[in-house]
Amino acid sequence: MDLTADIEQLHQRIVASIRRTPLFEVAPADFGLENSFRLFLKLELFQRSGSFKARGAAANLDLRSIPPAGVAAASGGNHGAAVADAATRLGIPAAIFVPEISDPAKTRRIAATGARLIVDGAHYADALENCLAHCAQTGALNIHAYDQHETILGQATIGREIEQQMRAEQLDVDQILVAVGGGGLISGVSAWFGTTTSVIGVEPENASALNAALVAGQIVDVDVSGIAADSLGARRIGSLNYEILCENAVTALTVTDHDIRSAQAQLWQTHRILAEPGGATSLAALTSGRIRPRPGSAVCAVICGGNVNAVSL
Amino acid sequence: MDLTADIEQLHQRIVASIRRTPLFEVAPADFGLENSFRLFLKLELFQRSGSFKARGAAANLDLRSIPPAGVAAASGGNHGAAVADAATRLGIPAAIFVPEISDPAKTRRIAATGARLIVDGAHYADALENCLAHCAQTGALNIHAYDQHETILGQATIGREIEQQMRAEQLDVDQILVAVGGGGLISGVSAWFGTTTSVIGVEPENASALNAALVAGQIVDVDVSGIAADSLGARRIGSLNYEILCENAVTALTVTDHDIRSAQAQLWQTHRILAEPGGATSLAALTSGRIRPRPGSAVCAVICGGNVNAVSL
Repeated sequence: MDLTADIEQLHQRIVASIRRTPLFEVAPADFGLENSFRLFLKLELFQRSGSFKARGAAANLDLRSIPPAGVAAASGGNHGAAVADAATRLGIPAAIFVPEISDPAKTRRIAATGARLIVDGAHYADALENCLAHCAQTGALNIHAYDQHETILGQATIGREIEQQMRAEQLDVDQILVAVGGGGLISGVSAWFGTTTSVIGVEPENASALNAALVAGQIVDVDVSGIAADSLGARRIGSLNYEILCENAVTALTVTDHDIRSAQAQLWQTHRILAEPGGATSLAALTSGRIRPRPGSAVCAVICGGNVNAVSL
Repeated sequence: MDLTADIEQLHQRIVASIRRTPLFEVAPADFGLENSFRLFLKLELFQRSGSFKARGAAANLDLRSIPPAGVAAASGGNHGAAVADAATRLGIPAAIFVPEISDPAKTRRIAATGARLIVDGAHYADALENCLAHCAQTGALNIHAYDQHETILGQATIGREIEQQMRAEQLDVDQILVAVGGGGLISGVSAWFGTTTSVIGVEPENASALNAALVAGQIVDVDVSGIAADSLGARRIGSLNYEILCENAVTALTVTDHDIRSAQAQLWQTHRILAEPGGATSLAALTSGRIRPRPGSAVCAVICGGNVNAVSL
């Protein structure tokens, strides 16, 4: 199913509600890699609310009709921050459900918007259960973090933006590295690029719903833990997402928590870019050596979130 | 004196030694300002060694002949980190003199390069005295942080880059806000733009060497203190710098430490960009209301450094 026309149209409609984040060319050697390929970081951690989730939130509010009870969202934190930010700016009531592992950097952002914040349950899946019960009871509209058509279209706008920014450099991107939780971002990116570009999902080995599904040939449940669990800790890949990923032959690999921490530290030490663990996961595929790009190719790693509780000013 | 041809030539020579940092359009409303003008942040904190000083360091090493004793530099920290990084990558010995107020984020960077680090004295001026004594004794080449022709040409390359990046947006920049310590960056920027663009120097009120000179009509000494003193704490503006600033009719204003801290916090809270106090000083001119850009104008604030000791991963 070709969604590119829908993505393009949506992007034009929500462009004023989101930020066009920078695409930054960096030297692989600054990450201890050979300078045999060109490396671009899509700095999506600078997006509104601190992650790409702002795109999906804006898409839902633009495309769906909102009941008087407002909206609700379950989230590890970033999707919740995005829905809270987008809804409250429009005066729409929002209730956000997050699990106890949610980083304080995320819950603080949610609370600061004035949205209702409910912290309950150990994992994202528990928050989702609470959120669905709330919607059934109140009539609020559930905005799913990934397994929702409009969410996928919204996240896909980053694909269009990356393509435009690479074209401005007279380049086509050969390979895009995307961290995967429930599959919202990567299904959007692969819906935009189709099979013309290699889109690679990167998961923590202790939160690897996509890898597990690809091995099993179907969606399966996995246990989730580790330093990126509050952003990538979905227990299973979304159905709509999995369908798009299969259609576009997306591949996936895993990295360790150590790889993620190391990529996060390198980003800060060498470039003064401070990503959250989930935001550094795509880069970890390169810095850990799990992926070795083809010489002469152009690779883009999406640095997808920056809501990290590591700063004291 | 028109330096633009020299700047252009130098930029082409050192382009592989420095990074082309992103120019990021942001919404004034995200900083509590009216969306009546277009605001661009030049994210120079992502430069090699964490500040624009990498440009001047690369310029010195490219344009000057280096004695066997190597190079030396006095610095609040950022210039030292830049010289240490650029010199050690070329196998050139480097001795870096910093005052005791230098941020640990800066001294750590210097030490990590393998350069010799000497921490002594209360202010930048003391470090400079130590550095000059060292050069007299050893024959090492002093690379002045600002009052040096090659340093100015190097910093000026950011002006050319900003112009190119604005042109890609089909825009000319109307106003550029630049933090001022000894005047290296702002003299470079104004050497590039001449009188065609309004270049405004922003200083902490407790380290205001340029404002004091403009008021007195000549270079004068000032006392320096405050949260940005380790990057903007020069006691007097450089002679070469002052000459260029006068020639191009640069103006200046001051902000308070509170304004700077607030701009730094807003940058982090709203955009996940973590600047050091000196790096947020240009933006503070806007967020404090000290400058109100003309409606419809395009304004660029240079976020010039990110070596801040505020992160624990």
